[in-house]
Amino acid sequence: MPTSAPKVVIVGAGFAGLYAAKRLAKLPVEVTIVDKKNHHTFQPLLYQVALAVLSPAEIAQPIRAIFQSAKNVDVLLGEVEDFDLTGKKVMIKGSGLQLPYDYLIVAAGATHAYFGHDQWASLAPGLKTIEDGLEIRRRVLLTFEAAESMAAAEGKYDPLNFVVVGGGPTGVELAGTLAEIARNVLVNDFRHINPAQARVILLEGGPRVLAAYPEDLSRSAEKQLRELGVEVRTNAMVTDIAAKHVRVGSEDLASAVTLWAAGVAASPLGKKLAEKSAAKIDRAGRVQVGNDLSIPGYRNLFVVGDLAAYPDANGHLVPGVAPAAIQMSKAVAANIARDLRHEERKTFHYLDKGSLATIGRSRAVAQLRKLHFSGFIAWLSWALVHIFFLIGFKNRFFVLLDWMWAYFSYQRGARLITDKQ
Amino acid sequence: MPTSAPKVVIVGAGFAGLYAAKRLAKLPVEVTIVDKKNHHTFQPLLYQVALAVLSPAEIAQPIRAIFQSAKNVDVLLGEVEDFDLTGKKVMIKGSGLQLPYDYLIVAAGATHAYFGHDQWASLAPGLKTIEDGLEIRRRVLLTFEAAESMAAAEGKYDPLNFVVVGGGPTGVELAGTLAEIARNVLVNDFRHINPAQARVILLEGGPRVLAAYPEDLSRSAEKQLRELGVEVRTNAMVTDIAAKHVRVGSEDLASAVTLWAAGVAASPLGKKLAEKSAAKIDRAGRVQVGNDLSIPGYRNLFVVGDLAAYPDANGHLVPGVAPAAIQMSKAVAANIARDLRHEERKTFHYLDKGSLATIGRSRAVAQLRKLHFSGFIAWLSWALVHIFFLIGFKNRFFVLLDWMWAYFSYQRGARLITDKQ
Repeated sequence: MPTSAPKVVIVGAGFAGLYAAKRLAKLPVEVTIVDKKNHHTFQPLLYQVALAVLSPAEIAQPIRAIFQSAKNVDVLLGEVEDFDLTGKKVMIKGSGLQLPYDYLIVAAGATHAYFGHDQWASLAPGLKTIEDGLEIRRRVLLTFEAAESMAAAEGKYDPLNFVVVGGGPTGVELAGTLAEIARNVLVNDFRHINPAQARVILLEGGPRVLAAYPEDLSRSAEKQLRELGVEVRTNAMVTDIAAKHVRVGSEDLASAVTLWAAGVAASPLGKKLAEKSAAKIDRAGRVQVGNDLSIPGYRNLFVVGDLAAYPDANGHLVPGVAPAAIQMSKAVAANIARDLRHEERKTFHYLDKGSLATIGRSRAVAQLRKLHFSGFIAWLSWALVHIFFLIGFKNRFFVLLDWMWAYFSYQRGARLITDKQ
Repeated sequence: MPTSAPKVVIVGAGFAGLYAAKRLAKLPVEVTIVDKKNHHTFQPLLYQVALAVLSPAEIAQPIRAIFQSAKNVDVLLGEVEDFDLTGKKVMIKGSGLQLPYDYLIVAAGATHAYFGHDQWASLAPGLKTIEDGLEIRRRVLLTFEAAESMAAAEGKYDPLNFVVVGGGPTGVELAGTLAEIARNVLVNDFRHINPAQARVILLEGGPRVLAAYPEDLSRSAEKQLRELGVEVRTNAMVTDIAAKHVRVGSEDLASAVTLWAAGVAASPLGKKLAEKSAAKIDRAGRVQVGNDLSIPGYRNLFVVGDLAAYPDANGHLVPGVAPAAIQMSKAVAANIARDLRHEERKTFHYLDKGSLATIGRSRAVAQLRKLHFSGFIAWLSWALVHIFFLIGFKNRFFVLLDWMWAYFSYQRGARLITDKQ
């Protein structure tokens, strides 16, 4: 590799960063991909780690392993602290390392947002990382263990209430799967308590769950959740969260475990970029990008994935979902390739291929263009699409086996509680 | 189940406790098994979790899942605080729970011993739990990541020295596998450092590794370790451990990660039992038991597994290995069955079925009675025996697949670093 090859630095190894690096690996450029974690996490299946269906290694892949044979891709475990847009450098926290770039692709994604209530974070964990998943698993399983101990000692136990805040796809998945494992799996595990009596309450601030989906599918999702035993409450605004309590309007709900799936905000790196470049950021912290996904005035600085604010054909913002992140990153890689060939860049157009949300065993909703469907077929489509997009052949194979095993045995293999270290 | 059925309390769900409960589940008794963890850990494969070959859920099984269909077995997540041997009760920490028993089987096992140097514990972690395994994995993988960052920034990096203290089976497995993953797997992952230059130093205080094995197998193990690139030092007494340093005699060794495999001590519950019963404990904290494995004067109080001190046919103590623990627990269950039938108890005799220790891919040593063998056949025997004894059909299947995948692909799937929570 000649040292004169353009240097591309990619910040973040989520879907956007990963697919950008994969495309760029085939070009005569030197790529460095920086992430705080040593692994890419397949976030769509993170809730299955949290609820003991899958193991962390099944939905995560070491970034180095993904690029083992791409010799022009350098992987760096580190946190980006700041950018020097005039000197064209990315500063890494702690190490004093400064990465020079010719092209910079910022794909730092999003994190939980507690809308000004940061004190809720430890009381109601959200689900963005493997560590979040294991913490949620620990809290959920320990609740049943504590109740069993209490029942054995005193003959009674605290109510097994689980409150999920937020009725988007993650909230729906968490609530549905929680109800399912309580009723189908844990019910055989205990002697002194009845896990099937666990209450799972899904709180949605708006008028319907899965607000981004067509109305008929929202209704279907709600129906399917109720069939699983989830109590769905819409127009339910959470006003406070405390230990073992959630306040909804003026009502106090007892909650053994509260999970947060109510909102995300863009990475704070978006704000840093905006400060240095005079780019605009929206209320959620997303950076407004031009039609080649670069920041106006900074032709070689791209923002992609959940951190980017870019309109679709209808004038709405492109949603923060994996397919959009992948499309954006491929578009950027293609425009860099055009630069290298001295061709003109093309405008990015988002193509909405449809949406899939799962609710539980054989339960899901799907929208493919004008087609809406629910139940087993939607669930099978969901499973196939997720297996297909999962990174790593071995992970695909193992997850498929795990799902088949779980489907037929009604067992869940990953019911391990690991202590906080 | 009549409430008049004798109550058996088992402390610990290692091999000894688990097999006792499995046998007792078939008798007209009420069993309660208490453990600090919610899972049984298959300790012989723990080093593979530490070195990123397997995932935690593959070698651990929720105790409740094991006894799901044994309706007379109660599982309690909790830590035993004390015993009331006259009132026949086991006190559980924190919960105020007191478990009454007619029979008590204490199988609390052993833990790392730092021989009076407890300050070494955080500097040189040992390997007894899943959490230990994940911490070792974190330290080992982060060492390579830090070196890669440093090399990218400064063009040089700290020596990649790994020091394993203790040349017993665990030390040999850790050293061999570490050398192997550095040279075969990680070597393709990095761009700025050469993981194959990692030094793995195995320190053994005595004259040979695997001291419990015949001399020819010790020699073979040492040779196989050297072939993998491990520096084996015998008669090497560790005199001090500090951050990044190990002192051997008067020599100072740089060490990026130090692992402790040098000694175990029996659970402190042994001392508690001895105080209350006037049973004798040996220097390692093991409780001396009679020929039915009960404590003299306490006919219904048994100690089994690593916590028990009991002589074999040659007058040596029965070793602290899984087959011995299993034999002891089956013997105790059989004697309880004899009690119920009003028959006489039988004396326990330990049968040494042989020993297997693995060193790396296709490398191992095995002793089956008078037969000694090394290399591929020993390694294959080791693999088959471990698959066979692994708890849970699904785990057997997944571990087998993982091993086949690792064997043919030279990859390791579980290379995830999870942060301390």
